[in-house]
Amino acid sequence: MRMKSISQITGGTITSPQGFQAGAVYAGIKKEETKLDLGILYSEVPAEASGVFTTSNIRAAAVTLCQERLKKYNKISTLVVNSGCANAYTGNQGMKDCEEMASLAGEAAGVSPEEVLVASTGVTGQLLPMSLIREGIKNIVLSPDGGRTLARAIMTTDTVPKEAGVYVKSSDGDYTIGGIAKGAGMIHPNMATMFCFLTTDARVESRFLKAALKKVVDISFNMISVDGDTSPSDTVVILANGMAGGNVISTGSAGARRFQKALNEICITLAKSLARDGEGATKLIEVAVNGARGTSQARIAAREVIGSTLIKTAVHGGDPNWGRVIMALGQSGIDVELERIDLSVGNVDILESGRPLPFNEASVVRALDQNEVPIHINLNMGRGTATAWGCDLSEEYVGINSEYMT
Amino acid sequence: MRMKSISQITGGTITSPQGFQAGAVYAGIKKEETKLDLGILYSEVPAEASGVFTTSNIRAAAVTLCQERLKKYNKISTLVVNSGCANAYTGNQGMKDCEEMASLAGEAAGVSPEEVLVASTGVTGQLLPMSLIREGIKNIVLSPDGGRTLARAIMTTDTVPKEAGVYVKSSDGDYTIGGIAKGAGMIHPNMATMFCFLTTDARVESRFLKAALKKVVDISFNMISVDGDTSPSDTVVILANGMAGGNVISTGSAGARRFQKALNEICITLAKSLARDGEGATKLIEVAVNGARGTSQARIAAREVIGSTLIKTAVHGGDPNWGRVIMALGQSGIDVELERIDLSVGNVDILESGRPLPFNEASVVRALDQNEVPIHINLNMGRGTATAWGCDLSEEYVGINSEYMT
Repeated sequence: MRMKSISQITGGTITSPQGFQAGAVYAGIKKEETKLDLGILYSEVPAEASGVFTTSNIRAAAVTLCQERLKKYNKISTLVVNSGCANAYTGNQGMKDCEEMASLAGEAAGVSPEEVLVASTGVTGQLLPMSLIREGIKNIVLSPDGGRTLARAIMTTDTVPKEAGVYVKSSDGDYTIGGIAKGAGMIHPNMATMFCFLTTDARVESRFLKAALKKVVDISFNMISVDGDTSPSDTVVILANGMAGGNVISTGSAGARRFQKALNEICITLAKSLARDGEGATKLIEVAVNGARGTSQARIAAREVIGSTLIKTAVHGGDPNWGRVIMALGQSGIDVELERIDLSVGNVDILESGRPLPFNEASVVRALDQNEVPIHINLNMGRGTATAWGCDLSEEYVGINSEYMT
Repeated sequence: MRMKSISQITGGTITSPQGFQAGAVYAGIKKEETKLDLGILYSEVPAEASGVFTTSNIRAAAVTLCQERLKKYNKISTLVVNSGCANAYTGNQGMKDCEEMASLAGEAAGVSPEEVLVASTGVTGQLLPMSLIREGIKNIVLSPDGGRTLARAIMTTDTVPKEAGVYVKSSDGDYTIGGIAKGAGMIHPNMATMFCFLTTDARVESRFLKAALKKVVDISFNMISVDGDTSPSDTVVILANGMAGGNVISTGSAGARRFQKALNEICITLAKSLARDGEGATKLIEVAVNGARGTSQARIAAREVIGSTLIKTAVHGGDPNWGRVIMALGQSGIDVELERIDLSVGNVDILESGRPLPFNEASVVRALDQNEVPIHINLNMGRGTATAWGCDLSEEYVGINSEYMT
């Protein structure tokens, strides 16, 4: 029997790779005492690190700190993260607090402060409650099973923690990749109020790690949409500590493609779980675009369809209003001709060459009523393909976001 | 006492200018028999005409017809319009039906078919019920008071008709401008499922009319947002029949600026009424941006803030979450520095130079609880200004759009 070269680990998480530990506590930043809100990820040896951050022109303090540190140092061994307060739009004091948070975490983990990254999510425009953080950080207990706990500590309006891990068999040596993520609101192409922290025990060369991370973010977290808004805190970070041994994976090396493939698998899994758990979401929508004039046009089309409020509500209500898909393609600005478009929802063909096929309305309603709603579009203009994920828009989304602060 | 040079006409509508007549019937295109769904606007003499249409790459048949006719002929005397069916994504048959509709209207009004424009709004992907239209069009009775009726016949999910008229006193001769509009859903920068039909009895030169219309659309209908979607049917048309006499108004003429000002006034009035009556809306939001680095950046900023789902829901719930405004400015891609931003909501100052001012939360909640919520932003980066209008996002919007077809 041939073993699969990349296999999902049941219960896989950010501490699945060797040499990573994590822990979290309730420090009091969130109102609800039953929730965790402060955690640390720790690598037993300094790890190659790379990050991708929000595209917003106004960034949270933690993003600025991460970007500066990753520019100066490649080796990171600790990440401290809190939920409940994003420390965004907080000026100089916010920056000072963020640096202190890194120092406190460095002390707790026994590493120098510049080996620490910070991530904060939650309400914007408020300073971190530093006294609570100073107190709370001392109580964090790191453990090799701590991934589950950390995944819960980064949740805001998420209803479930998002974790994944894959085990990779490779001629360069076997290794593991793990990750946790949070999302829920402000999820849109170009990331969102989202975190994804990834770890691997593979030996990965710094430049390749950076390129691989950029590539995977483009096809995973940059292809999901909940509500069209971009947060000032979006952060994807990967730490590679090399503790699995094996050959160094670098651009063009024997194992490079497999590493990218494994990374894609884990990030797409996490991205889909973010979309599925969007605020108020009841369904995962998957939009696959084929036949676009190039990949970039396929990406634009898939993102436009997944981002359309009218399509989100139609899917929510099980309304077979396929005209809204054509509307989204039309407004996307890509090269498109109605007479070439094939469209199907679930396994029901709706349009062929732009002409409505006779279909049973009940079967479309049934397809829209599933937990996963796949929308397939062939533009028949070229060879570009892309896939995007999102969720339906429900009355509950409005409820959640009408009263987030109050 | 000095008379105002531009005065709003109480009860002003599209038939307020001299020489325009209108009428409408229930033809059976909509399900509800209590509603009107087919109407005609008629000018007693052929009028200079100009139009601005959807930016979508896939257009409804009526838009194609209007664009072709306005390219060939400048003089238009009749507009036939229906609601209940957009005749969009309907291929060749849709185009034939649209042309027949123009011919039928031409017959009914006693003008040649090429002097007729067509506009259709409603469900996409379905052919027009031509037998109903053939029958219905015969029953339309034109009258100089018919504007009110026509305004009701173009409504879809609108809850109230939108009409306006202004009377202009000018050294070139006095004249009237009138207009009706419809909106409700798919309302977003770059127009929406929206119609605006304008009439004037001023004598306006063709090229100037075109330029004036383009200018006004940019600062009115292109600055409103309900849900971020663009329809294939968006149409703004103006007819100028010259029946008020007076001097010809042309680029640089004595009366040109006043005509533009009057046109701006009427279109901004109509645009605001569209935003206020967005699907499920309970409030009008006005975002005024000052101090941007140029007008184009001001426009982008105002549209980004008005288009943000998170801001719409925060205003809906009366949630004083000002961080979402900063988020929108940050993601807009314009030149912005947190340390320079002044922000106020209603008459409550929230931020000065990026720093939160001490404010009474209750007073912000009160400001958000008004029918009109003005948000003022000064970026302090330059001299660009722009204003955009939108509405809050309510649970009801989701309800309306979950079940539009079914």
